[in-house]
Amino acid sequence: MDRNTPAGSEARRANVVGLGLIGGSVALALSARGWTVTGEDADPDRVDAAVLMGAIAAGGLDPDASLTFVATPASAVPDLVKQALASTSGVVTDVASVKAPVAAAVTDERFCGGHPMAGSELDGLDGADAAMFEGAVWVLTPTAATSDTTFATVARVVSDLGAEVVALPPERHDALVAVVSHVPHLAAAALMTMADERAEEHAALLRLAAGGFRDMTRIAAGQPGLWIDICAENRPAIVDALDALVDRLGQLRRAVADDERDVLLTELTRARDARINLPGRVAQSADMAEVRTTIPDRPGAAAEIFTLAAELGVNVTDFEVYHSAEGQRGVLILLIDAAQSDLFRGGLLARGFRPSVRHLS
Amino acid sequence: MDRNTPAGSEARRANVVGLGLIGGSVALALSARGWTVTGEDADPDRVDAAVLMGAIAAGGLDPDASLTFVATPASAVPDLVKQALASTSGVVTDVASVKAPVAAAVTDERFCGGHPMAGSELDGLDGADAAMFEGAVWVLTPTAATSDTTFATVARVVSDLGAEVVALPPERHDALVAVVSHVPHLAAAALMTMADERAEEHAALLRLAAGGFRDMTRIAAGQPGLWIDICAENRPAIVDALDALVDRLGQLRRAVADDERDVLLTELTRARDARINLPGRVAQSADMAEVRTTIPDRPGAAAEIFTLAAELGVNVTDFEVYHSAEGQRGVLILLIDAAQSDLFRGGLLARGFRPSVRHLS
Repeated sequence: MDRNTPAGSEARRANVVGLGLIGGSVALALSARGWTVTGEDADPDRVDAAVLMGAIAAGGLDPDASLTFVATPASAVPDLVKQALASTSGVVTDVASVKAPVAAAVTDERFCGGHPMAGSELDGLDGADAAMFEGAVWVLTPTAATSDTTFATVARVVSDLGAEVVALPPERHDALVAVVSHVPHLAAAALMTMADERAEEHAALLRLAAGGFRDMTRIAAGQPGLWIDICAENRPAIVDALDALVDRLGQLRRAVADDERDVLLTELTRARDARINLPGRVAQSADMAEVRTTIPDRPGAAAEIFTLAAELGVNVTDFEVYHSAEGQRGVLILLIDAAQSDLFRGGLLARGFRPSVRHLS
Repeated sequence: MDRNTPAGSEARRANVVGLGLIGGSVALALSARGWTVTGEDADPDRVDAAVLMGAIAAGGLDPDASLTFVATPASAVPDLVKQALASTSGVVTDVASVKAPVAAAVTDERFCGGHPMAGSELDGLDGADAAMFEGAVWVLTPTAATSDTTFATVARVVSDLGAEVVALPPERHDALVAVVSHVPHLAAAALMTMADERAEEHAALLRLAAGGFRDMTRIAAGQPGLWIDICAENRPAIVDALDALVDRLGQLRRAVADDERDVLLTELTRARDARINLPGRVAQSADMAEVRTTIPDRPGAAAEIFTLAAELGVNVTDFEVYHSAEGQRGVLILLIDAAQSDLFRGGLLARGFRPSVRHLS
């Protein structure tokens, strides 16, 4: 499939603001693909280190960059996004773990929020890895203000870094990550602290911690400061999900206490089946279909199509956007699993698009 | 260090009753070390498969085996341990995840319960692995009835399989594994089911599950049947630990809801420090000390010394037991980290032993 670079292939210049674990990885991955990356960080030593390791070509903010990634702690993101919009002519995205506050603070057709669902318990530039996003999901959270070109530019670049794009409204993203990331992290911390407390009474306790416990508590080694910001920014969704978890643990507690083996069997079997069926990193199906649809003359249509795909559970393997020279009207071509093509076509028709589907197998 | 095989090196014959994941791994590991292993299973096809893969030499129960491992589901363990004690002249151990019920059901100087803190989400003989116990902790739960020879025989063999022996009273073991294994498993199941339920509303949810969520829920893929038995057998300790977890999650929930950043910082920092300091698989220190003590003329003295080591957090790297020809009196030699030798010596003196310590570095 041909690649479409809205800003032109001569403009492979990017900024990365914030050179920590994620920003450093983005910079390394872009540089490895031939981009000229300029970078900033609150810590000047880190900028020097990023130049030394080849993550960025120079410190500063390149006004001609076609794309700027803001990868700082969440609380600094809105101001730095606005600054990048003012200082550069290109598109701006961020990688904060909570999306609604950024979306509320920044309304600009050149901004599209994002969140790569990748990382490690490592910390800072030293843990950066050019391969971090390969096969990972990268959520984009376009709003009504986000232009199609902006969405397509960000989606194209993160796809090129090896990530699978999933488009979601910001609030939806925040509710979902509370369940699959934020509350699991708090649960890991609770399990670890509980074990640590009891270890004061018996030194052997932590030596009994086998692989399962290690796996479960690994994320508790993450930066407390980052997590406190996340808890503050995504408060309602986290409180909801914590309530749901406590409720479910209470049900399990009653089932154990009352020896309700049927209840336990149902719960544990459901959990087992769900875990076994958890989708893995992107695996391309043998049978693909190409879905082609004109994008009507209104902003956000491309983003709407990606968001619909996410809602329907349709995995977009690759895509292209063609715009006519005179304006917003264009064609979006998506590559999806052939088995999902009817489902996706139905959804597109229901939303007023006119898709055509071609099976490629 | 010389190896002491209480039953004599000519008697390297063992039984393994129950040829699943753990039993199969024990059989493979023993066979790889030159033992003649005889095995039984409720499923005759599994016995044939174990012979074919070289885990056991033959099916059945060898009456001359110096050691029998009972590795069946927990509910069958007490009867099969008694049967092995009646049918063989050797020592018997088991690998059940809960130890107090077995200890209560079997009072015999030739029995010492055990629990290897190893495994995988794989299931059955196909997942068996001769290297499963290398570097793992193997808890032994001797009681007042267990003779020194029995304890030393089991401890010697599981050490030879690469495991680190930690001796604990059965009830203590059960309380500790509720915290580091059973309740984490239930929490993993609760997180997985909660995510699965919400995924019905939004298909994208499970695609957002990154490495942290995958790590946390991996153990939820375990056999529900085994876990229901564990919940029944370790009910009081599991209910206690679940209450403690729910309580702690409730505190975190309040801290998030009320934006108590100090409380969150304290909790998350403690969890992080504890996770980073979680002891890894056995790593031998450079500076070792040899602790030598006579074992007085009373049963269970060797087990008492190992239990004391576990209580003090002292890691026993290797050990030997010498018995005088005429009876119970003997010498126990333990290899420990030199940095812990004063601590251990203090404990031994307090319990009436007369240790001597020699630094080996």
